[in-house]
Amino acid sequence: MEKSSITKATLGRLPHYLQLLRELSVDDVPYISATVIAKKLSLGEVQVRKDLSAVSGSGRPKVGYKTADLIKSVEAHLGQGDMTNAVLVGAGKLGKALLEFDDFEDYGVKIIAAFDCNQNPIKYNRSIEILPMNDFDEFCKKNNVRIGIITVGTGSAQNVCDRMVESGITAIWNFAPCNLEVPDGILLKQERLALSLAHLNNQLSNM
Amino acid sequence: MEKSSITKATLGRLPHYLQLLRELSVDDVPYISATVIAKKLSLGEVQVRKDLSAVSGSGRPKVGYKTADLIKSVEAHLGQGDMTNAVLVGAGKLGKALLEFDDFEDYGVKIIAAFDCNQNPIKYNRSIEILPMNDFDEFCKKNNVRIGIITVGTGSAQNVCDRMVESGITAIWNFAPCNLEVPDGILLKQERLALSLAHLNNQLSNM
Repeated sequence: MEKSSITKATLGRLPHYLQLLRELSVDDVPYISATVIAKKLSLGEVQVRKDLSAVSGSGRPKVGYKTADLIKSVEAHLGQGDMTNAVLVGAGKLGKALLEFDDFEDYGVKIIAAFDCNQNPIKYNRSIEILPMNDFDEFCKKNNVRIGIITVGTGSAQNVCDRMVESGITAIWNFAPCNLEVPDGILLKQERLALSLAHLNNQLSNM
Repeated sequence: MEKSSITKATLGRLPHYLQLLRELSVDDVPYISATVIAKKLSLGEVQVRKDLSAVSGSGRPKVGYKTADLIKSVEAHLGQGDMTNAVLVGAGKLGKALLEFDDFEDYGVKIIAAFDCNQNPIKYNRSIEILPMNDFDEFCKKNNVRIGIITVGTGSAQNVCDRMVESGITAIWNFAPCNLEVPDGILLKQERLALSLAHLNNQLSNM
């Protein structure tokens, strides 16, 4: 199933659609329309229609979507059944906080290990170990890691980023408050939490 | 000085402008143009011109901005000299990670305390104490707290949000992955970290 690029807002609603669709029995409800879904979830019909058409094309007129197919399309867009492996570098407070987020897997991403400098391997929780940076390259290549999450300080962020690229990682999510340089073809998402707060403060002072 | 509403991207560049302007001696450089600033910071001139005009109107033709006035305008937009007091509720890993961010103050927001359930007051670091929720309302009113940061779990987020509104807080930054209801006139910024990662994963699968 081909996955198209969809907006963050649509992505955010997909888990709700999926939950609803899974609760239905496909035998009882073989087809479902955007109108029905919108009503059940108290969402705007236009919005639901747009979301569904982004993930699954347009439904059949007057009938809607084949429920079973729609479930598969939504799952595919959420990357489920086809988890992307991620690692995190920098197991400080922020890194550990991210390791405890349980909703990343709902969106098809699984953090399979964390790394830190001079770290003897330790079991962090049931599924995640914190490993020394020495093991980084081999681990990433062996486990086909595609996403790297950077939660180290500004001073080492570019180094970690370079290491990730060398190890075959193609998408980087950076929390260090600095601009990183990546080669062409590498996706970089800069998370600037301070800016969210700054923006809120700016809106507040304009009220 | 009136503060206008500006974009997050512009806000993100303001600290760089401010740092540069402060390094100049106002006596040596009484006026400065967008062109000069763009060159010194390796930024696009059109962008700098737009940013500065958003914070300080247009400069004088051929002369630019009065350096001292520009510093004041940028500071005002960053909320400096006029810090907004914030508190955080939920001193788990994520909450503590946010308490360690040192760039919030660059954007005019100061987290002055954290709160947690059944918590005896403890000193978290030089400037921040973690206090019991019993003290919340009185503390917020006494200290004119305007921003509340929610880093509790989904189950208690709406309760904490209501408490914040009752205590006079007018802007809420919520990290719990749930939609909160706030009365009209209260600003709500929903931080959905999982969605950033989901979006990156979605882009990755379309490469």
